[in-house]
Amino acid sequence: MTSITGMTQDELDRNETVTLIASDKVEGTPVYNAEGEKLGSVDKLMIDKRGGRVSYAVMAFGGFLGLGESYHPLPWEVLTYDTELEGYVVALTREQLEGAPRYARGDEPVWTDRAYEQSIHDYYGSSPRMMML
Amino acid sequence: MTSITGMTQDELDRNETVTLIASDKVEGTPVYNAEGEKLGSVDKLMIDKRGGRVSYAVMAFGGFLGLGESYHPLPWEVLTYDTELEGYVVALTREQLEGAPRYARGDEPVWTDRAYEQSIHDYYGSSPRMMML
Repeated sequence: MTSITGMTQDELDRNETVTLIASDKVEGTPVYNAEGEKLGSVDKLMIDKRGGRVSYAVMAFGGFLGLGESYHPLPWEVLTYDTELEGYVVALTREQLEGAPRYARGDEPVWTDRAYEQSIHDYYGSSPRMMML
Repeated sequence: MTSITGMTQDELDRNETVTLIASDKVEGTPVYNAEGEKLGSVDKLMIDKRGGRVSYAVMAFGGFLGLGESYHPLPWEVLTYDTELEGYVVALTREQLEGAPRYARGDEPVWTDRAYEQSIHDYYGSSPRMMML
């Protein structure tokens, strides 16, 4: 049986283990809220080159909340993988997502701006990983 | 001007900063040896889910050394980005690459096997990150 990604179930299984997951499997994975409603999907990961850590998963939320498609950088810690839903769950309320840092397609933020990163972490109450190194 | 990836130079610039790089930019990036010879390209990253760290970059080496295409998981630390080459450089000799752990397409290793991970790190003299957490 071949999945919509073109990979067989066996190949999918080999791409995700207890501890390791392939980047090309993360991209495109659906994202749900705590109520199990689909919000969107993972667009890409932002990786800290020096430390080799995943700093953010950028979520594409398509037309959610009456907005056009928008991209929300979420700290990796905010995501939980749900094996039943076969997707990530972000335990954020509608209000939290409405106010969250986001950008439109073609209007990518200046990732070099540490104040921008700080604003994300301030919002989610997490710590910028780059500053911990 | 649009690159072969379909992104404009401006979009490319926004995808790579001093500290952060997008996962979809890493995938497909060429890989060179210390002499500047192209060896292959990045196929995907293997990410430690719990710690959110990039454990390995899996390199696809196409027909290199007279072998068929093979996939080499390299510890992230082994890679250096070269801005002139616009690719990663792995400072490994031909002999080191010939003996390195690798697999063929469709014959992906059992990533859950810690002994497999240990064999990679033993080869490159690095430390499995999952064991450091």
